[in-house]
Amino acid sequence: MENFNYYNPVKILFGKGKIYELAGEIPENARILITFGKGSIKKNGIYNQVKEVLEDFTTFEFGGIEANPTYETCLEGLGIIKDNKIDFLLAVGGGSVLDATKFMAASANFSGEDSWEILSKEAVVESAVPLGAILTLPATGSEMNGNSVITRQKTMEKLAFSSSEVMPQFSILDPEYTFSLPQRQVVNGIVDAFVHVIEQYLTYPVNSPVQDRMAEGILLTLIEEGRKAMEAEMPDYSNRANLMWAATMGLNGLISVGVKQDWTTHIIGHELTAFHGLDHAVTLAIVLPGVLYQKKSERKIKLLQFGERVWGIKEGSDEVKLNKTIQETEAFFRELGIQTKLSEHNIGNKTIERIMNRFKDRGIEKIGMQQDIELEEVRYILEIQL
Amino acid sequence: MENFNYYNPVKILFGKGKIYELAGEIPENARILITFGKGSIKKNGIYNQVKEVLEDFTTFEFGGIEANPTYETCLEGLGIIKDNKIDFLLAVGGGSVLDATKFMAASANFSGEDSWEILSKEAVVESAVPLGAILTLPATGSEMNGNSVITRQKTMEKLAFSSSEVMPQFSILDPEYTFSLPQRQVVNGIVDAFVHVIEQYLTYPVNSPVQDRMAEGILLTLIEEGRKAMEAEMPDYSNRANLMWAATMGLNGLISVGVKQDWTTHIIGHELTAFHGLDHAVTLAIVLPGVLYQKKSERKIKLLQFGERVWGIKEGSDEVKLNKTIQETEAFFRELGIQTKLSEHNIGNKTIERIMNRFKDRGIEKIGMQQDIELEEVRYILEIQL
Repeated sequence: MENFNYYNPVKILFGKGKIYELAGEIPENARILITFGKGSIKKNGIYNQVKEVLEDFTTFEFGGIEANPTYETCLEGLGIIKDNKIDFLLAVGGGSVLDATKFMAASANFSGEDSWEILSKEAVVESAVPLGAILTLPATGSEMNGNSVITRQKTMEKLAFSSSEVMPQFSILDPEYTFSLPQRQVVNGIVDAFVHVIEQYLTYPVNSPVQDRMAEGILLTLIEEGRKAMEAEMPDYSNRANLMWAATMGLNGLISVGVKQDWTTHIIGHELTAFHGLDHAVTLAIVLPGVLYQKKSERKIKLLQFGERVWGIKEGSDEVKLNKTIQETEAFFRELGIQTKLSEHNIGNKTIERIMNRFKDRGIEKIGMQQDIELEEVRYILEIQL
Repeated sequence: MENFNYYNPVKILFGKGKIYELAGEIPENARILITFGKGSIKKNGIYNQVKEVLEDFTTFEFGGIEANPTYETCLEGLGIIKDNKIDFLLAVGGGSVLDATKFMAASANFSGEDSWEILSKEAVVESAVPLGAILTLPATGSEMNGNSVITRQKTMEKLAFSSSEVMPQFSILDPEYTFSLPQRQVVNGIVDAFVHVIEQYLTYPVNSPVQDRMAEGILLTLIEEGRKAMEAEMPDYSNRANLMWAATMGLNGLISVGVKQDWTTHIIGHELTAFHGLDHAVTLAIVLPGVLYQKKSERKIKLLQFGERVWGIKEGSDEVKLNKTIQETEAFFRELGIQTKLSEHNIGNKTIERIMNRFKDRGIEKIGMQQDIELEEVRYILEIQL
């Protein structure tokens, strides 16, 4: 195991009815900006619940945050924060709303000229407006970490930052809040969480049995509960609760302590979203099998462990087991109704060239946290999935 | 899954050499009381390292904290805190030193007359002197939770309290600091951590696959790494690192969220320590098999799951599998060199009577968090292990 520091002070309030503990978590006399997305919370009743619970507070609103939230949108929100002396942000939504709110929180206290530098130049986040979250879409883990991914419309760049300053003070996770989600978003959430775990688990062994078994436990849960979610005619509370907690535990930092992470699939996937607007989870389902095929010799030990413990693959030569493991993984995404080939999304070699050129322009020679993927391999990874 | 709140702001600094980050974690100008046990840290060099790293701080010392730390000892430390206007406590040791330091931290700020009420009357801990920890003995999980167990010598009572106010601000976990431990303490730590996990896992199913698999992953790690530790001629870094992290993850609150906990084995075990001074872990290894035999019908579902996933027991009738599961568990403790029968410790029916009488005097009718064990069953549990 490698050395590590771990710090995660996010308070989790989990379960039905937890919204009624909200007011007690926010400082008295706070001037709150409630942030949300395209308005689904106004249709499913969550908005009204939040307003009712916060009736003794001064609240403002900033709605309209899009999927793959943009820097441009965040600047609008930032204006509202400054104009109204907001001192608490309450994100009500999924990962996009949370990520945008985190970036606004950091931007509001940013001392430099342009807070885009937090993303483009890794400018340090020295402080942020405190924030809390009410999660409506389990997927990104943003409710229990300090990560945020923001897209700049103008340049079609999708970049990430991470800081403990933007960790939510609390996050309310009520599985019932996911009942009104369209199936597509439920499925995207499962795939997103699945690939998060893989990014932190499937590289090289460092003798980390606790972290490995936690990761495998979350993957097994996502498979079992994901299949149940597909079969269910009506949303089931336990099923949604398990999916929600699996997604949160998948990216709260615990399974990545002391191990060798990857994140190649995300780096490549972000480009597919930037150029074609594909759902984040769909890009991951496309890219991951390509990465695993491309790296199957180097990452053989962990891949075989994954195959055996998660997919139950024990028979055959290593080569047979490796291929089966990757096939099972891709088949699971397809079983959830996700198209895992680029051609199924009308994407071809032209986009591959564009992505290659963009990485070259950025001066990138190797990608992934293990730096074990040469730039030229990105082409092969995407060609495998054509 | 049941509703829950989870909050754990302890910062973990894990790995060799992490002591050199210590000074940066303590507030400038802090007046620090370094607390420790019977002096092993002076022999193995840890004391000198700590003093060197803290040379710019004003430090005081309180050594001599015993295993199963006493209220009487804590009162002595409390005097030093008050006399010297201490504003930071640094516990250097195992669970006993940490638990005592937590109780001193809470007592120093206690507004009532006698801080024993925190233990005897569940008086609320409104604040505490901030504390940090340097762990030298992985076992109790005290480095990443707000729990503390204190014994009152005069009355031979061993009681526990829990408060987020006494969670360490940080804990340094350097596996090399465990290299000088006697084998008996290594083994005790493994058993202690194992039973902590069982207490949070082995009652009744609530459909909690993430928590269950995490618990099973920690148990499997403790078994595998525990056996390696027994076989090793010299301490191995990876082995000690995995044992250390397993013990911490076993009691930082994560595997118990939303599930039905027990703690019967601890409640009964504490009495064996109080009356006979047995090592805490030894009492757990004695009592747990008795609890599992006594409750094997009611807790059948989780016991069978434990047997299958942890011990690989899949063949035979339920009755056969249940018995095998409990036998394997007790055999593992014995493999580690722990004597699991009361008679092996010269304890007989007289002690059982004393324990029964003490519980009766306290007005206890049922024990355990599930209240599924009648007082009379305590007798059967102990008789099974005579």
